[in-house]
Amino acid sequence: MTSAFARLPDPPYYAVIFSSQRTPGDQGYGATAERMVELAQQQPGFLGMESTRGADGFGITVAYFRDEASIAAWKANAEHRQAQRMGHTTWYEHFELRVARVERAYGGPPR
Amino acid sequence: MTSAFARLPDPPYYAVIFSSQRTPGDQGYGATAERMVELAQQQPGFLGMESTRGADGFGITVAYFRDEASIAAWKANAEHRQAQRMGHTTWYEHFELRVARVERAYGGPPR
Repeated sequence: MTSAFARLPDPPYYAVIFSSQRTPGDQGYGATAERMVELAQQQPGFLGMESTRGADGFGITVAYFRDEASIAAWKANAEHRQAQRMGHTTWYEHFELRVARVERAYGGPPR
Repeated sequence: MTSAFARLPDPPYYAVIFSSQRTPGDQGYGATAERMVELAQQQPGFLGMESTRGADGFGITVAYFRDEASIAAWKANAEHRQAQRMGHTTWYEHFELRVARVERAYGGPPR
């Protein structure tokens, strides 16, 4: 299987931490979420993403970008904006979005 | 129910983004994870956390701290260090940890 972990360059780079509580039912969410992953990968400056959601509908997605300009361009992407509107009206009970500059990183376990 | 969302002050603050792939079976993980949440809440400079894990065992936890010194103190906590060792030897197939400075944040949907 494809690893769920993003392969990223050395810091610094940016993280968009998006936590969300889904409303019940799919309502087109799954297909759009897949399309957004595909679309994000075409966004210049996009570095990778990690995402998971529990059975309670609470999820965290972290998308990594080279810089703030890439984040702004992704946010303004027309197809992504349409998805954002659906998120607001239909898919999310609530979300929090935090933009952060990654300063250091390491992986493990040490073997 | 208690909200899964952290209630945080205005930025700037720090995020420790911990993504992990669990090994099969509990092996004491659940009880220790609960204890670590309780212990982190006693750590000066700890601001809150959000955490979720999917059925595939891939999880993301984001813990928020006031500053880097608070992160260093939490990492060095003796009981937390013991848990880290169990993570390395037993609980995690793999993990990635990224420390980031949160620069801006907003929630939604806009109502």
